[in-house]
Amino acid sequence: MSNWEELVLTAQKHRDATISILDPPLPDLPVTANLPKNLTSIPRSVLSPVEIGITETPIDELLAALATGRLSSVTVTRAFLRRAGVAQSLVNCVFELAPQEALTRAKELDDFSEEHQKTVGPLHGLPVSVKALISWKGLRTTEGLVAALANTATNDAPILALVRSLGAVPFVRTTEPQGVMMLETLSPIHGSTLNPHNTSLTPGGSSGGEGALLALLASQLGLGTDIGGSVRSPAANCGIYTLKPSAFRLPLAGIHVFFSGCEMVPATVGPMSPSRKGIAIFMESVLGTRPWERDPSLLPIPWQKLEDPFEPKLNIGVMWDDGVVKPSKAMSRALTEVVKKLEGNPRFRIERWEPFKHKEAVGILVSRLLFVEKLYSPDGGQAFTKALAKSGEPMHELTDYRLVSGPGVESLSLQSYWDWTMARNIFRANYLQEWLEKAPQMDVILCPPHPGAAPPIGTTKYWGYTSVWNLLDYPAAVFPVTRVDADLDSEDSDYNSRSEVDDWTHSHFDAQNQAGAPVCLQLVGKRIEDEKVVQAMDEICEAAGLPFIDCLR
Amino acid sequence: MSNWEELVLTAQKHRDATISILDPPLPDLPVTANLPKNLTSIPRSVLSPVEIGITETPIDELLAALATGRLSSVTVTRAFLRRAGVAQSLVNCVFELAPQEALTRAKELDDFSEEHQKTVGPLHGLPVSVKALISWKGLRTTEGLVAALANTATNDAPILALVRSLGAVPFVRTTEPQGVMMLETLSPIHGSTLNPHNTSLTPGGSSGGEGALLALLASQLGLGTDIGGSVRSPAANCGIYTLKPSAFRLPLAGIHVFFSGCEMVPATVGPMSPSRKGIAIFMESVLGTRPWERDPSLLPIPWQKLEDPFEPKLNIGVMWDDGVVKPSKAMSRALTEVVKKLEGNPRFRIERWEPFKHKEAVGILVSRLLFVEKLYSPDGGQAFTKALAKSGEPMHELTDYRLVSGPGVESLSLQSYWDWTMARNIFRANYLQEWLEKAPQMDVILCPPHPGAAPPIGTTKYWGYTSVWNLLDYPAAVFPVTRVDADLDSEDSDYNSRSEVDDWTHSHFDAQNQAGAPVCLQLVGKRIEDEKVVQAMDEICEAAGLPFIDCLR
Repeated sequence: MSNWEELVLTAQKHRDATISILDPPLPDLPVTANLPKNLTSIPRSVLSPVEIGITETPIDELLAALATGRLSSVTVTRAFLRRAGVAQSLVNCVFELAPQEALTRAKELDDFSEEHQKTVGPLHGLPVSVKALISWKGLRTTEGLVAALANTATNDAPILALVRSLGAVPFVRTTEPQGVMMLETLSPIHGSTLNPHNTSLTPGGSSGGEGALLALLASQLGLGTDIGGSVRSPAANCGIYTLKPSAFRLPLAGIHVFFSGCEMVPATVGPMSPSRKGIAIFMESVLGTRPWERDPSLLPIPWQKLEDPFEPKLNIGVMWDDGVVKPSKAMSRALTEVVKKLEGNPRFRIERWEPFKHKEAVGILVSRLLFVEKLYSPDGGQAFTKALAKSGEPMHELTDYRLVSGPGVESLSLQSYWDWTMARNIFRANYLQEWLEKAPQMDVILCPPHPGAAPPIGTTKYWGYTSVWNLLDYPAAVFPVTRVDADLDSEDSDYNSRSEVDDWTHSHFDAQNQAGAPVCLQLVGKRIEDEKVVQAMDEICEAAGLPFIDCLR
Repeated sequence: MSNWEELVLTAQKHRDATISILDPPLPDLPVTANLPKNLTSIPRSVLSPVEIGITETPIDELLAALATGRLSSVTVTRAFLRRAGVAQSLVNCVFELAPQEALTRAKELDDFSEEHQKTVGPLHGLPVSVKALISWKGLRTTEGLVAALANTATNDAPILALVRSLGAVPFVRTTEPQGVMMLETLSPIHGSTLNPHNTSLTPGGSSGGEGALLALLASQLGLGTDIGGSVRSPAANCGIYTLKPSAFRLPLAGIHVFFSGCEMVPATVGPMSPSRKGIAIFMESVLGTRPWERDPSLLPIPWQKLEDPFEPKLNIGVMWDDGVVKPSKAMSRALTEVVKKLEGNPRFRIERWEPFKHKEAVGILVSRLLFVEKLYSPDGGQAFTKALAKSGEPMHELTDYRLVSGPGVESLSLQSYWDWTMARNIFRANYLQEWLEKAPQMDVILCPPHPGAAPPIGTTKYWGYTSVWNLLDYPAAVFPVTRVDADLDSEDSDYNSRSEVDDWTHSHFDAQNQAGAPVCLQLVGKRIEDEKVVQAMDEICEAAGLPFIDCLR
């Protein structure tokens, strides 16, 4: 057995051990062959009514129950641990559980609140799930690479320490793909993570373990990371809520990747939740600690609840299509239905927003040839290839496509690296100028978060609907709207091929196969207008009555 | 004649033409051989009493006179144009004048205020000097390179456009060194710019033309840029005020250098002024326009006059020595005298601040070997060498030292580039941690802005006293304190060699030769605490009665 296989086996055995020690042990699940494609109701059929009640309580009510002592953190944590164990059996989304540590901390918090009649912080007692990439003191590092499994984190990543200090109880680490640079969750470390709505589809990625876990309500709040769509893709594929904040609002230290130090496109942590309220609760709690006073990379900007930022109307620009890859019929229908609801409401003003130079943007992101990574893989995959070689793990074809051998990938000189950085800066300046000139009153952009619904596993290539906002460093939220309908969404008779990746994406949308998969939308704001995006999402969801179909319950 | 010599000659002829058309023409100056080393009083001996009165009026009073119409902008602009012409004859600090454009604009402003009985903005009618690097529509570009002289800027740099929109009258462009990466102002384009306090000394750089011009009171407000000390070095050498703001507060677009796109150490525009009040006036006026709404690189943070940021005391950490290059006796004396004044004042609390890992910082900035550029010249000077080759201009030895052939300079791979970026980030995190642990109450750091006073022309090598704050992205102000005293500051009997660059620097300080040169101090705050730095500078200067000796009058 080679080095990498040994490392993987050890990690998987450890994961299984963290699940087998759960008390009471996990219930028996139906035989796999008898499972339907949609697994979202299975946890309900095997857990106790109390566990179901706890885990399906929306985050704000759960926090209230924990704060008043109506629920103990130990009880709540135990319920989520068991639901996460079930989720792992179903969709392979768990890197490892941390039952002992979590229950010890939960007990401490219960004791504290009983003794002092107050909470430790706004997340008191709440179990929180954490993408494995985020360093966790005393546990294996990952970096999305097998080789990293050999090491143990000596410290919590500051965002994790901060969340702990707010009273949260981190209890599970979730899966991520090889190299954390694909919008799926495929890795030699754990194999494939599946979409709980349809196991033939991908949950998205790279925070795909979070997406799958949260859609199964095995967590009410998860921490993901995003550099090209990595919280938004799993939220969109799994039918939950997320925010990719503007960069440098949340601490990113202690999150190591093979390209650490590359600042071409800034990464960020982002909250993910099955409840809309989870997003604002997280942002407000974390920024309430003024993390910029301790982390010099952060912006000294508190989370501001704006009185009425949309006086007199909330102005929404709708970007129907990015002009590069055509949205599926399901996606266009979701957008149409939401717009129809809002158009009838005097609070909203809807206008069309043309995709400004998205083709060029994708060009900047991914070389002059479309869809080929430049800013994302400026060294032509050298660092990544070297990182893989440390353990000998095989390269996944989607990673290879994105980072190494896709058409046009090349190793840049420092001079070209600087030139591309300038091209990025100019694109940012031009985009804002276009916004100010063409639609000065526009508050937010409503658009697809990806071309279709969750694609079949292994087929996700295009990420322009999310990565363009990373390039611009614009905050972007995702929220669920409806499901793919086998009848309404089949056959796009208007389809005209635009390019190879358009064909590829189009050919992998099939309303029959994807029927029932969640369809979500994305809401985008100007840089550092995260608060506006979240408030606009709230208003839109309430006014339109979203989601039209709740996929999770 | 080679290409570069032609370009230079054309630019110099143009400069001379912009001076010769001044009306009335410039007065005759004393024969050069009869001039003293200190030229600061010469303008007074050749200009009219009215011109002297106008140009020597502090900026706040000048703005008040312009706003009320007691002085017309045309009269004021004409006076500064003539004083700038004299300054050019004395110290070679002018790249070109813009008399026609400036006087036309001044007339427009006068007409506007007469017609509307109000001002265009807070800088209404004020002549402003501009480092040549900052693009000026219709005029030659520079980039600190002869080759760039062949081109004309198609637009004003946004900071220049913004200053115009506030009512300012840009009237002169000032000199900068080859490559704008040295703390002197030596260039094939214009030769040497001299220090008006002592023509054998350098005015500093790279905004050295500004420093010299402002010290001769030929401008009350100038725009410089700083990436390693480029507004602070000339301020310190010439005895004026400046602020290097935190990065991304002031627009930097339209300022092109050979390494544009390199983001390792962020550059910034900074105001320079012979009046302390010039700094806050500039920052408040510019940020009052909310430039971040139009420039996506900027932080959305207004300039905030803090009620009392130093309650109950202003806590000052004094860094006497950076541990790398020992300050001259003049510098130590200035620091001692200021500290003595403040220690007797209950408003202030003084503590010692040890230079935290400055040696390592200099290492990060300039390779593991000290004083060798790494973050500043990560491509081993390739881009610069190529830029010079475009015109064939010869490389200056100080530029060569800093960018190309200094010990340890090398061309980094992308991987090393990212590794050095991470090292920078870790240093930033560690420095802040040290501050919070060792001196949590410390508001600002008071320290030397350079090791001595202005050094003899061509001898400036060490920039660690300024560049460390660029590395940290901490705001840093410079203010004048006293002069070098031939008696008090001679002979440092305690000197023990620390390194080659320490010896070099020590050997070039000579209290006899530098007698009368201004001695300034630097005040540093945490990132994005620019307001605190400026308010602390005001309090310190007022409480200590600074400057002890006014070098400019």
